[in-house]
Amino acid sequence: MRKNNLRSLWQESQTAVNCWLTINSSVAAEALAQLDWSSATIDLQHGLIDWDAAFPMLQAISSTEVVPMIRVPWNNPAWIMRAFDAGAYGVICPMINTRADCEAFVGACRYAPQGYRSWGPVRGLIYGGSDYFKHANDELLAIAMIESAQALENLDEIMSTDGLDAIYIGPNDLAISLGLEPQYAPKDRKLADAIDTILAAAKRHGIVPGIHCGSADMAREMTAKGFQLVTLMNDARLLVDAAATAITTARKT
Amino acid sequence: MRKNNLRSLWQESQTAVNCWLTINSSVAAEALAQLDWSSATIDLQHGLIDWDAAFPMLQAISSTEVVPMIRVPWNNPAWIMRAFDAGAYGVICPMINTRADCEAFVGACRYAPQGYRSWGPVRGLIYGGSDYFKHANDELLAIAMIESAQALENLDEIMSTDGLDAIYIGPNDLAISLGLEPQYAPKDRKLADAIDTILAAAKRHGIVPGIHCGSADMAREMTAKGFQLVTLMNDARLLVDAAATAITTARKT
Amino acid sequence: MRKNNLRSLWQESQTAVNCWLTINSSVAAEALAQLDWSSATIDLQHGLIDWDAAFPMLQAISSTEVVPMIRVPWNNPAWIMRAFDAGAYGVICPMINTRADCEAFVGACRYAPQGYRSWGPVRGLIYGGSDYFKHANDELLAIAMIESAQALENLDEIMSTDGLDAIYIGPNDLAISLGLEPQYAPKDRKLADAIDTILAAAKRHGIVPGIHCGSADMAREMTAKGFQLVTLMNDARLLVDAAATAITTARKT
Amino acid sequence: MRKNNLRSLWQESQTAVNCWLTINSSVAAEALAQLDWSSATIDLQHGLIDWDAAFPMLQAISSTEVVPMIRVPWNNPAWIMRAFDAGAYGVICPMINTRADCEAFVGACRYAPQGYRSWGPVRGLIYGGSDYFKHANDELLAIAMIESAQALENLDEIMSTDGLDAIYIGPNDLAISLGLEPQYAPKDRKLADAIDTILAAAKRHGIVPGIHCGSADMAREMTAKGFQLVTLMNDARLLVDAAATAITTARKT
Amino acid sequence: MRKNNLRSLWQESQTAVNCWLTINSSVAAEALAQLDWSSATIDLQHGLIDWDAAFPMLQAISSTEVVPMIRVPWNNPAWIMRAFDAGAYGVICPMINTRADCEAFVGACRYAPQGYRSWGPVRGLIYGGSDYFKHANDELLAIAMIESAQALENLDEIMSTDGLDAIYIGPNDLAISLGLEPQYAPKDRKLADAIDTILAAAKRHGIVPGIHCGSADMAREMTAKGFQLVTLMNDARLLVDAAATAITTARKT
Amino acid sequence: MRKNNLRSLWQESQTAVNCWLTINSSVAAEALAQLDWSSATIDLQHGLIDWDAAFPMLQAISSTEVVPMIRVPWNNPAWIMRAFDAGAYGVICPMINTRADCEAFVGACRYAPQGYRSWGPVRGLIYGGSDYFKHANDELLAIAMIESAQALENLDEIMSTDGLDAIYIGPNDLAISLGLEPQYAPKDRKLADAIDTILAAAKRHGIVPGIHCGSADMAREMTAKGFQLVTLMNDARLLVDAAATAITTARKT
Repeated sequence: MRKNNLRSLWQESQTAVNCWLTINSSVAAEALAQLDWSSATIDLQHGLIDWDAAFPMLQAISSTEVVPMIRVPWNNPAWIMRAFDAGAYGVICPMINTRADCEAFVGACRYAPQGYRSWGPVRGLIYGGSDYFKHANDELLAIAMIESAQALENLDEIMSTDGLDAIYIGPNDLAISLGLEPQYAPKDRKLADAIDTILAAAKRHGIVPGIHCGSADMAREMTAKGFQLVTLMNDARLLVDAAATAITTARKT
Repeated sequence: MRKNNLRSLWQESQTAVNCWLTINSSVAAEALAQLDWSSATIDLQHGLIDWDAAFPMLQAISSTEVVPMIRVPWNNPAWIMRAFDAGAYGVICPMINTRADCEAFVGACRYAPQGYRSWGPVRGLIYGGSDYFKHANDELLAIAMIESAQALENLDEIMSTDGLDAIYIGPNDLAISLGLEPQYAPKDRKLADAIDTILAAAKRHGIVPGIHCGSADMAREMTAKGFQLVTLMNDARLLVDAAATAITTARKT
Repeated sequence: MRKNNLRSLWQESQTAVNCWLTINSSVAAEALAQLDWSSATIDLQHGLIDWDAAFPMLQAISSTEVVPMIRVPWNNPAWIMRAFDAGAYGVICPMINTRADCEAFVGACRYAPQGYRSWGPVRGLIYGGSDYFKHANDELLAIAMIESAQALENLDEIMSTDGLDAIYIGPNDLAISLGLEPQYAPKDRKLADAIDTILAAAKRHGIVPGIHCGSADMAREMTAKGFQLVTLMNDARLLVDAAATAITTARKT
Repeated sequence: MRKNNLRSLWQESQTAVNCWLTINSSVAAEALAQLDWSSATIDLQHGLIDWDAAFPMLQAISSTEVVPMIRVPWNNPAWIMRAFDAGAYGVICPMINTRADCEAFVGACRYAPQGYRSWGPVRGLIYGGSDYFKHANDELLAIAMIESAQALENLDEIMSTDGLDAIYIGPNDLAISLGLEPQYAPKDRKLADAIDTILAAAKRHGIVPGIHCGSADMAREMTAKGFQLVTLMNDARLLVDAAATAITTARKT
Repeated sequence: MRKNNLRSLWQESQTAVNCWLTINSSVAAEALAQLDWSSATIDLQHGLIDWDAAFPMLQAISSTEVVPMIRVPWNNPAWIMRAFDAGAYGVICPMINTRADCEAFVGACRYAPQGYRSWGPVRGLIYGGSDYFKHANDELLAIAMIESAQALENLDEIMSTDGLDAIYIGPNDLAISLGLEPQYAPKDRKLADAIDTILAAAKRHGIVPGIHCGSADMAREMTAKGFQLVTLMNDARLLVDAAATAITTARKT
Repeated sequence: MRKNNLRSLWQESQTAVNCWLTINSSVAAEALAQLDWSSATIDLQHGLIDWDAAFPMLQAISSTEVVPMIRVPWNNPAWIMRAFDAGAYGVICPMINTRADCEAFVGACRYAPQGYRSWGPVRGLIYGGSDYFKHANDELLAIAMIESAQALENLDEIMSTDGLDAIYIGPNDLAISLGLEPQYAPKDRKLADAIDTILAAAKRHGIVPGIHCGSADMAREMTAKGFQLVTLMNDARLLVDAAATAITTARKT
C-alpha cells in the first residue's frame, strides 16, 4: 500500500504544511497540488464543495505526492467512510467534544476489530494499492478537531482514545466557544492559553498536534511552538488577497 | 437596459482593469467578483471551462458591478452569439487577422441591419433588461484580438471595421508569430515595437486599445502608455503564486 | 450585514410569499428570482437537488432582493450549518416533533453562546458582509416544520424554544400523520382543525406562522387567516400545469 | 428501429406540438415530457444548455413517447452529428439561408451515399435499436430554419434540397432581418406576408412547415393556417409567466 | 402505480439478478440497463456517486423494465426518503445490526401509520404514477444488510421486524467482522456457516434472502442455495476485468 | 517536458494499444487507466462526453503512464487547440479527406512557424512541464483519420503533409463511404483492400499507421499486419459485453 507521507514526516519530527481547499474545482486543486504542500484537505464542512465535486478533486491531487485528506461536515460514519473509500488518506472531523465522540469517529476510520468501517474502498484500492486491507488501519489518519470549551474539559479522555492519530485546533470555533470573536492568530489571551493547553495535552499523549492558521506567519509561529500539522488559510482567501493586491498595484498611478 | 460600465469608463478616458477567469468554478468567480475589477472575462479558449461551467460563473458575477465578458475559443458565430445570449456584455475574439475575420466577428455581435446576430438573449434579457433589443447593438462590446504577424500587416483594414469597439493584444501569441518565445512584458524589442504600432493604430482609429498583461506592474505600465483595457494575468496564476509564497514563508525556520 | 427582508416584512405584519425550488437548475432559479417573491427556498429534502447543484442556485438568487432559504433534508447540524455557510438567510427544518428536536435545530443555527454553530461562513461573508459574525444570530431565520401528530401534542414545548423564529406547516405530512390522505388545502376537518390549532399556538408564542400551500388561492386564504409565510407550490408543478394548459389550448381545433 | 412519431403524425396530416427546452435540467425535462407533446426540442443555440447538460435531458425524455430533438447552435457537422449520435430523432438547424447551407446541413444528417454523416451512434443504437444504420436516413429529421431576408429570396433553392424534411420559421429573426422588431405573432404585415410566403413554398415543395410560436393561441392559429410543427414558446417563459400570475393571485387582498 | 417487478419475481419464487452501479455516469447506467437485469442498484455508500450524479442515473434506468434501487450510505431517514422520492423502488441499507436499527430503517421507508416517511415523492409520482400514495407502502422494498457479527446474534429480532421485505448479505463486511479477510465467495468456513445461518433465518421468517456476489459463478451457486436477490459484482470491476483480458489478448504475439 | 511514450514505442517499432473512452466519468477513466494501455483517447466526437466532463477525465488519466489523447468532434482549430491546452498529448481528427484538411489540422497542432496554434497551455504546462513551449511541437501528436473514399484518392497528398505523425483508419466510416455496411473487422473485400492500401501508403510515407478495432482479436491481427496504433473498441462496449456474459452465466440453471 502507498505510504502515508504525513506519517513519515511526523516520524522524523517534521511539520506538515497543509493546503485547504474550499473552491469546488478540480482545476484549482490540481494547480495547487503542484506546490510543495505536505497534504491538501478538501473542506466538505464549510467549503462550497460536496461529494460530486470532491471526487475529481481527489483524483486531481492524486497525480502528485501531496497527501489527500478530507474534512467531513460532521461526525457521521457515512461521510467518514466515504472519504476513505474515495481515496483520502486522512479525515479531519469537526467538533470532537467528548470521549464518546472520539471513539465513534476513530471507529469509523478503522476496520474491525479496531473499528467498524465498512469494506468497499473503491478508489482506495486504486490510490492505495491492492494490499489496502492489510495496511489501511495503519496508514490512514484519524484527526479530531478540538474546538470547543467542552472539548477543553475533556482533553485527556479524548486524546487517550485508542487509534487517534492527531488533533487539529480550530481557533475560530474555539474562540467563539470561549465567548470571544472568531479569530485565527489569538488576539485574546484566553484563546492563546487554550491553544497552549491543547498542545501540551497532545504532546503528553504522544499524538500529533495540528492547527488551522490564518496566515503563513502564524503557521511558522505555530510550527516553532511544536505544531506538526499547520494549514495556510484557504484557497479562496489566498486568491482573493492576491488579486486585491494586484488590483491596487495596477490601479496605482 | 443596464449600462455597460466599460463604455462609461472609456468615455471618461479611464482604464478598465480586467479579471481573467480560467478556473471552472462559480465559487471562485463570485469571490473574485467582489473586488474592484472593472470587468471579468471567462476564458473559453485556453481556460479549463466550457459552457455548462460558464453559465453559473456568469450568474455569480452578475450580483456585482463587474462587467461580465467572455473570450470565445475561436471566431465562430455560434460561440459569439451564445456568449451574449448568456448575458455577457463583451466578447473578446482570438486571432482576428484580416478585415474579413473582423467583419465576420463584429457581424455576429450585432443584430441586423448592423450584423447577423440571431435573436434569443435568454439570459441577456434577465441581466440586461426588457429593452435589450433596442440597446444591445450599442451596449455590447466587440473586442478583437490582435496577435499575429498577419494582423500586424492588416491593422488599418481591421481597425476600420464598422462597429469594432476595441482591440486586445495577446503578447504571447504575437511574440510566437514574430518568431520569439511566448512572453508577456516584452523582453524582445521586436515585440515591444509591435505593441507600440498596434497601440498607435488603435488611437488613430479611435478604438479602445487593450492588452493581456503578465503582472500588475506590467498592467500599470501599459496603462501609462495609453492602454485602456488591461488584464492582470489569470486567476490560477494569482492563486498558485500566492500559495507558493505562503508555503515558502511557512516553511522558513 | 445585509438585512433579512423577511424580518422587516414580519415586523410590519406583512406576509412573505415564498418560492419553492425543486428543479436542479440555477437557470430556472435565476429566472424565477426576478419575480416579486419575498423569498425562495431550495428544497433539499424532496427536491431533486443536492449541494453541488444548490450552490449555484443560491448564487443565482443572490443578484436579487429575494431572500434565499434552504429546506434541509433532516434535522442534522451538518446540513443546517452548511446551508447558512453557503449564504442561506433561513433554514426550514422538517419533522420537528419535540422540544429536544427543536433545541437541536435552533442550536445548529446560532453561534455560541446561543447555539453551537461552527464558524466558516465562506459564502455567508460574501452575501451577508464582513460583519457577519456580529449579526448572524439576529438576522438568520430558524424555521421549524410542524407536520406530525406528535408535534401537535408538543406545540407549546416546541414553540417556546428560545431563538425559534417561525414554524412552517407541512399539510401533506400532517394529514398523513393524522391518518388522512396527503392534501394541501384541507379537505378533512381534522386537518383544518390541526392547522388552526398550530396557527393559534404560533400567535400565542409570538412566532411567525408559515404554511406550505398547494395553490395561489390557498396562499391567499392562509394569508387572510394570519399566516405570514406562504409558499406557492413548487416550480415543477407551476411549470407542468402551465404547459398542460398551453398544450390543451394549442390542440383545440 | 424505433419509429419516428413525427413522421407518422405528418403522414396523417396532423400537427405536431413541440416543447422547447432552455432550462439546463433533466428534472424539468422529464417532468415536461410526461405531457401530451409530440416532440421536445433541446435548444443548444439560445438555451442555457450545452452538451454535458443535454445528454441526461435526452435520457430523461427517452422514457416517454415524446420525440427528442435538438436545435444545434449553428450549421456545423460536429454539432449536427453529435445530436443524432446522442439519440436525437430530429435536428433543427438555424440560419439556413442558401442552397449550399441546406445541402451542408442535410448532408450532415445522412449517411453516405445521401450524405456524409460519420458512424458512431453510441446512444442512437440504444434509443433507436440495433438496426439503426438500415433506417436512420429514413427516420431522422432534418429541419431547416428559415429566418432571414436572404432565405426568403432562396426559398425554392433551399426547399428543393434532396432529403430536407421540414422547414421551421423563426419569426423573431425573420422580423429583425426584415427591419422590424423581434416579434412572435406577427404585428407587422411584412412579417405576416413573409410567413405566408414561406408556408406556401413548403406546401409547394411537399415538405413540412413548422414555426416557433409565442403562445398557445398563436400555435393554434398557425395550425389552422396549415403549419404542422408548432412550438409553444419555451419552458422558462411558461414557468415565469405561471409564477407571476400565481404571485399576483396570492398577493391579492 | 407501476408494479415492482422484483415482488412479482419473488412471488413466483424466482431469483432477481441485480446490477451494481459505482460509476458516476448516466451514460454507463443507461447502457447497462438495456440488459437482462431484474434490478439495478446505485451504490451511494462505497460508489463514487452522490445525489447530483444519481438523479440522472435513476432517470436513465427508468426507460427500461429494470427496477431501480439505491444503496444508501447509512441508516439515516434523510437518505432513505430521498432515494424513494427520487423514484427508487427499493432501498438497501447497510449495517442493520439490531432490531432498533431495523425498525428505524423500515419506518423511514413507509408512510404512517406503518412508518414515518415524509411526503414529497417528486419523481416517485412520475415514475410510479399518480396513485403513488395508495400503493407505495406495498410496492417499495426495504432491504436490510446483514453484515456483522452483531447482526448474526440478532437475526430473529431483525428479521421479524414488521415490513422488512428482504435481507442482503455483505460477505466482505461479514468476513471482516468475523475476524477474516474481506472475501466474496467464502474461502473461510466461518463465513460460509454464517451465510447459511442467515439464509436459514430469512427462509424461516419468510423474507427474501439476498447476497452480494463477487462473480457470476458465485451468483449462480447462491441462487442454487436459495438466494433470491443476487448481485453480480459491480460495473467498474466488470469493465476493468474485461479490459484487462482484452489488452492481454491484443498484446499476445 | 514529459516525454510522449507513444513516440518512444514507435521509435522501437512497437505497437501502441489504445483505450477508447465514451463514458462521461472520470471514475471509469481512472479505473481503466490503471491497466496496461499505451494510451487512452477521450472521444468527443461520438462519445457522450463534452469538455466539462472531459477535463476531469484527463486529470484522472494523468496519474498514470497512459498517454492522454482526445478525438475532437471535427477539424476545427478551437477544439484541437483546447485539447492540447487541457493536457492531451495527441489529437485524433476525423474526416481528413484532402491535403487542405490535413494542413489545417496539423497547423492547429503546432506553434509558429510550423503552425498557428495559439499560446495558453494552461494544463499542458502542469502535465507537460514548464519547458512546454520548447518541445510541444516535437512531442504532441497529430493523427489524421482516413475514413472516406475521398481520402483514399488523396492518400499521398494527405500523408505527405509536413508534421503529420500518424493516420488512423475508421473502418466503419470507410465502409459506409465505400457503399458497404458499417463494420470493424472487414467482411467485405473492398474494405480489406482499402485498409491495405492505406497501410501501405503510411509505410511509404514513414508515418505511423493506426486503426480502430472492434475486438482484441482484430487488434492483434492488425498489429501483425503492421499497424502501430490499435484501439480496442470502447469502454461502453467492453462493459456491456462483459455484463451480458455475466448475466447469462448467473441465470444458467
